[in-house]
Amino acid sequence: MATVIPVEDPADPRLTDYTRLRDVQLRKSLEAEHGLFIAEGEKVIRRAVRAGYPVRSVLTSRRWLEPLSDLLEGVQAPVYLADERVLEGVAGFPVHRGALAAMARTPLPSVPELIAAARRVLVLEDLVDHGNVGAIYRCAAALGVDAVVLSPRCADPLYRRAVKVSMGAVFAIPYARMDDWYHGLGDLRAAGFRLLALTPDQSAVPIDKAVPAAGERVALLLGSEGDGLSSRWLKEADEAVCIPMSPDAMDRGVDSLNVVAAASIACYGLMRS
Amino acid sequence: MATVIPVEDPADPRLTDYTRLRDVQLRKSLEAEHGLFIAEGEKVIRRAVRAGYPVRSVLTSRRWLEPLSDLLEGVQAPVYLADERVLEGVAGFPVHRGALAAMARTPLPSVPELIAAARRVLVLEDLVDHGNVGAIYRCAAALGVDAVVLSPRCADPLYRRAVKVSMGAVFAIPYARMDDWYHGLGDLRAAGFRLLALTPDQSAVPIDKAVPAAGERVALLLGSEGDGLSSRWLKEADEAVCIPMSPDAMDRGVDSLNVVAAASIACYGLMRS
Ligand SMILES: C[S@@+](CC[C@H](N)C(=O)[O-])C[C@H]1O[C@@H](n2cnc3c(N)ncnc32)[C@H](O)[C@@H]1O
Ligand SMILES: C[S@@+](CC[C@H](N)C(=O)[O-])C[C@H]1O[C@@H](n2cnc3c(N)ncnc32)[C@H](O)[C@@H]1O
Repeated sequence: MATVIPVEDPADPRLTDYTRLRDVQLRKSLEAEHGLFIAEGEKVIRRAVRAGYPVRSVLTSRRWLEPLSDLLEGVQAPVYLADERVLEGVAGFPVHRGALAAMARTPLPSVPELIAAARRVLVLEDLVDHGNVGAIYRCAAALGVDAVVLSPRCADPLYRRAVKVSMGAVFAIPYARMDDWYHGLGDLRAAGFRLLALTPDQSAVPIDKAVPAAGERVALLLGSEGDGLSSRWLKEADEAVCIPMSPDAMDRGVDSLNVVAAASIACYGLMRS
Repeated sequence: MATVIPVEDPADPRLTDYTRLRDVQLRKSLEAEHGLFIAEGEKVIRRAVRAGYPVRSVLTSRRWLEPLSDLLEGVQAPVYLADERVLEGVAGFPVHRGALAAMARTPLPSVPELIAAARRVLVLEDLVDHGNVGAIYRCAAALGVDAVVLSPRCADPLYRRAVKVSMGAVFAIPYARMDDWYHGLGDLRAAGFRLLALTPDQSAVPIDKAVPAAGERVALLLGSEGDGLSSRWLKEADEAVCIPMSPDAMDRGVDSLNVVAAASIACYGLMRS
């Protein structure tokens, strides 16, 4: 059972895992170097624990001790207890869902390990927006995707907002990060995946003409919010495919779908065979 | 041609349209009562002006006067000129895209007026998240939806974040807001629309079995992020339809798609005939 430790000062050094959250820059390096991430809310903390991430500490208020008691029972880490005002002072935002947990990252599999048993894979190139990454994991979990592969610079799925938007699906879908962007698709190709590059370019093959054969291993490549897929990856893919858009989309000032919308339609259209 | 007026004090009373933006509560009532909204960035301001929204004022910095000059030429409103620091002081956030414009709302059409010439309509019930509303407008513009109908309490498409995420599509897709939630679907029914209620309930008709006849008028009803569609609207609809999810979605902690993902797949699957 975890030790419960009351804290009163938002600047208490034992809370640095949480206070440093407020500084986005610092946070990026912290999260990477010290392998820290924050799970927010009872449900999400439970999912993270169930997925095997070690708890470094929990920060909560008195009225959440009871609902969390079974979870805390199994945890070998300090539980800091603060009132709502101190909680908000520490986190820098109102903590609506009762608790924060500082969790330790665990080593990711390599790409070949990840895809060994997978048949339907999403590959994200350099996505910037954490909300988009989280939403794509949720969509992947709902629509039967087996695994996600991230480009070296793709936004972190364990970032607070990504975790939140994914509803915890970032803990349920196995993923890996490529070491090398340039040769990164090689592992997928070597494992026999058909690589379909998703592009708004309306001269590409429409997705309903690109439906894979039953049982075929398929990887869908999705590009970043601003620039889309790199020409390198477009060239490496077996086929460029598009979701047909309305002829008047351009007049309405829209030249592409948002990457979550594109991922959803593509998973639905291409990943069910 | 607009008059250019240098401003130096973020508290200058002529800038209240912008300063009050920082107070979310105040902003809600302001935006509703005084019919104000803010367009951010050159592109979005252009689209809003092209869509016929009157400009109350523009707030920008010296280096954006030149790129905006043709636009400002046609504007009969004051253009406040400030340095980047004052701009940020006024807005409460860094203004990356060069300019803000305070725009006046114009009266919305009634639902019967809106749908008179429409064939493919989305109906949003009580969505809370402005980003989701914006993303759905973008998707609607890309996939050939003619119009959007909002429930009385649905989040405002002209809220800053909705405008931004939509890439300006909120200015391109005509929309209306129902006066009355309980009887709100009556106008659509009276106009001969087929009402399809989208629900994650996997015992509903799968969307590929619900594809409308060519030329049929169709309205897709989408529910709120938390609770989904009300039982009233589910009952009022002609048919409840679902996007089939993977059998292991539940084990992965996911019991529904995000509403943007659902809207995208449904528009793609049901709105192309
Ligand atoms: C916002 S888009 C990028 C737009 C970028 N200007 C381009 O031309 O690729 C982000 C990603 O969503 C996917 N996407 C967007 N619209 C699409 C469409 N109509 N068909 C297929 N994929 C699309 C692509 O993978 C794209 O790289
Ligand atoms: C996040 S869901 C709401 C979840 C809510 N718990 C429910 O049971 O409806 C928001 C909206 O997205 C749509 N939606 C989500 N998943 C769907 C699915 N698998 N099939 C059809 N519509 C779905 C529905 O319109 C729903 O009201």
